[in-house]
Amino acid sequence: MTDKSIDDYMIGVGQRARAASRLVGRAETRVKDAALLAMAAALEVEQERLLAANGQDMEAGRASGLDAALLDRLEITPQRVKAMAQGLREIAAQPDPVGEISDLKYRPSGIQVGRMRVPLGVIGIIYESRPNVTADAAALCLKSGNAAILRGGSEAFHSNQAINACIQQGLASAGLPADAIQVIDTPDRAAVGALIRMAEYVDVIVPRGGKGLIERVSREARVPVIKHLDGVCHVYIDDRADLNKAFAVAYNAKTHRYGTCNTMETLLVAADIAGQALPELGRRYREAGVELRGCARTRDWLPEARVAIEEDWGTEYLAPILAIRVVDDLDQAIDHINRYGSAHTDAIVTEDLSRARRFLREVDSSSVMVNASTRFADGGEYGLGAEIGISTNKLHARGPVGAEGLTTLKFVVLGDGHIRQ
Amino acid sequence: MTDKSIDDYMIGVGQRARAASRLVGRAETRVKDAALLAMAAALEVEQERLLAANGQDMEAGRASGLDAALLDRLEITPQRVKAMAQGLREIAAQPDPVGEISDLKYRPSGIQVGRMRVPLGVIGIIYESRPNVTADAAALCLKSGNAAILRGGSEAFHSNQAINACIQQGLASAGLPADAIQVIDTPDRAAVGALIRMAEYVDVIVPRGGKGLIERVSREARVPVIKHLDGVCHVYIDDRADLNKAFAVAYNAKTHRYGTCNTMETLLVAADIAGQALPELGRRYREAGVELRGCARTRDWLPEARVAIEEDWGTEYLAPILAIRVVDDLDQAIDHINRYGSAHTDAIVTEDLSRARRFLREVDSSSVMVNASTRFADGGEYGLGAEIGISTNKLHARGPVGAEGLTTLKFVVLGDGHIRQ
Repeated sequence: MTDKSIDDYMIGVGQRARAASRLVGRAETRVKDAALLAMAAALEVEQERLLAANGQDMEAGRASGLDAALLDRLEITPQRVKAMAQGLREIAAQPDPVGEISDLKYRPSGIQVGRMRVPLGVIGIIYESRPNVTADAAALCLKSGNAAILRGGSEAFHSNQAINACIQQGLASAGLPADAIQVIDTPDRAAVGALIRMAEYVDVIVPRGGKGLIERVSREARVPVIKHLDGVCHVYIDDRADLNKAFAVAYNAKTHRYGTCNTMETLLVAADIAGQALPELGRRYREAGVELRGCARTRDWLPEARVAIEEDWGTEYLAPILAIRVVDDLDQAIDHINRYGSAHTDAIVTEDLSRARRFLREVDSSSVMVNASTRFADGGEYGLGAEIGISTNKLHARGPVGAEGLTTLKFVVLGDGHIRQ
Repeated sequence: MTDKSIDDYMIGVGQRARAASRLVGRAETRVKDAALLAMAAALEVEQERLLAANGQDMEAGRASGLDAALLDRLEITPQRVKAMAQGLREIAAQPDPVGEISDLKYRPSGIQVGRMRVPLGVIGIIYESRPNVTADAAALCLKSGNAAILRGGSEAFHSNQAINACIQQGLASAGLPADAIQVIDTPDRAAVGALIRMAEYVDVIVPRGGKGLIERVSREARVPVIKHLDGVCHVYIDDRADLNKAFAVAYNAKTHRYGTCNTMETLLVAADIAGQALPELGRRYREAGVELRGCARTRDWLPEARVAIEEDWGTEYLAPILAIRVVDDLDQAIDHINRYGSAHTDAIVTEDLSRARRFLREVDSSSVMVNASTRFADGGEYGLGAEIGISTNKLHARGPVGAEGLTTLKFVVLGDGHIRQ
């Protein structure tokens, strides 16, 4: 297709999504949940077709030289089909956020004023290789009463189409419009450009993927973007920390998984406790094969650490590498985090209540923690159910975003013929 | 200044605002409130200086041929000084939204997860002639723990500087940093261009002014914009309406004030009640001097109405003009509103509970009302205290925006050395 015909195609997609969003937005909870359960059943029934479609993608991926990590993300296995179906059932079991009215109060004028939670409208989701996102994202959008336009990676084309067939079965069985969830089937990259610019038909874009994708989408979008940038997360071990908690939290935050955004990348240690904390932590990290990079005071205790340079403080390694800095006190720790961090997730380990209170208030990150591993920053762990992503935006949704993050609040006013005086 | 030196100047402003925002964000409630009360006192003490400075602006405005409406907005009178001071005192008396923790719950893992309300950081406000916005906006930003960069109209230059002197007295007396509120004193329009692009230092832009300003800001901004576009508001008189309520609401919504965004611009009337409603309403509107433009069925009852054309349905008249359409039923009314409206404020008049429920849920506007005048869509009437504006955005803040709309929620996690398994 030419760029012009792609634009026309995408405008058609957008118009159909907008029309469908009106129907999904008013759909009753039991209808949406029935669709989700039917999708889950269809995924299990159609497992062989899914695996066959995925086999085509895997073969093409191997032929085009995708690396092992990408191929792993692309692969659909019977266990992954089961997990997708289970995910849909869990979303069906969650409470419906739509229509909830809060804070309905009488005002001096006699009117009642409250706020109703309502869908955003049409959500555009742009993602890369993992085909399970097709099912997850569709389900979260539907649950929250939104229409979805899904644009997966071209390497997962057949897999996404097969999953979409199951989604469509679910929508049809519940009497919901097919256009409530549209999977873009043109591999043309211009489709993304059109999607992120049609503010008339799309209310928000959620890009899920590498930094390149997210930066491109953020730069070019005319539609608001719920985006996830870096996760340069910190643990600060205060000099009033319980050392056993410090060891557990700092070890888990780094080594539980290396490639996740909520993994600690820089450890800050109060000078007064560095001599007690660093040698033991260094030993544990060495055993786990973590490369250490430290400031001068860190290297007094861990001489084997490489010298950390300025760049280390702002780097999201996503690897078994850890930067360590000894700081004077809580103030210096907070300054470091607010200066070098990415406002994602940061934790303090302390037994001191006043310092904990200050850290919670003054660290300007989407998740702030006391005596807990940064790895807890996750929609499931927070009780949001499935998550569409983690937002590093400040406006609207911040931190893990579940179904509620795909809704907004409008004011409702009830009167009895009231007029303004 | 050259554009380059303006950019440098604005970056300096942004850096100082960012640094100040850290201090204001953690300031205790009583300190912020003391500053607000001191500002109010300073405005009253310095009244003569304010009037003199404003006199300079008024004189220049008259000389440059500003029209009467603009001159009226620009003028500061003793009453308006009093109103500004009173506004600051009311904001001081409001509860502090910052730091409130909600929904703190234990999770199965043993951690507690909740959300804390925190300032956005740095708010840029761009406005036109009314100098009282300088005091209002500064106060709302300070109350919500944000630093503010205020860019008023060049026609109000001396007035804004005089008000800023009072603001600065208030900040200083409470020990808050002067940079917490910066009033841009270059008349150069390039300052606006720089302000709306420096996403590193500014977290959100609130443009207050005419449509031209808002569209320019929205188009060029790299910073999120809380914007207010059109107010094409509707009242729908259902055939199960109480006619007296219908007359009161429909008359008040149009005639209470013509130039406000929450004024009704289109009246929808169910066909079955048109014969009872329209002749009497037409009589009242004629008495008030409102020009009527109607569809064919409207003109059956109000033959003196001009023929409404397609363009009328989407027009925000801001004038004593009203478009009237007779619709078949609730469905057609909702379709009309969602198609032609601006998702601002829409009301139904009905005694039928099921129809009221449908209207509240299905009309996708920032305020939806039952048996109440659209004129109630206002921060003061809703109990938000002062408002920084009305948002027609869907994300983040929707409808009237008070201090709470200038905050966001972060997650707080409390543990006791908890790690992720």
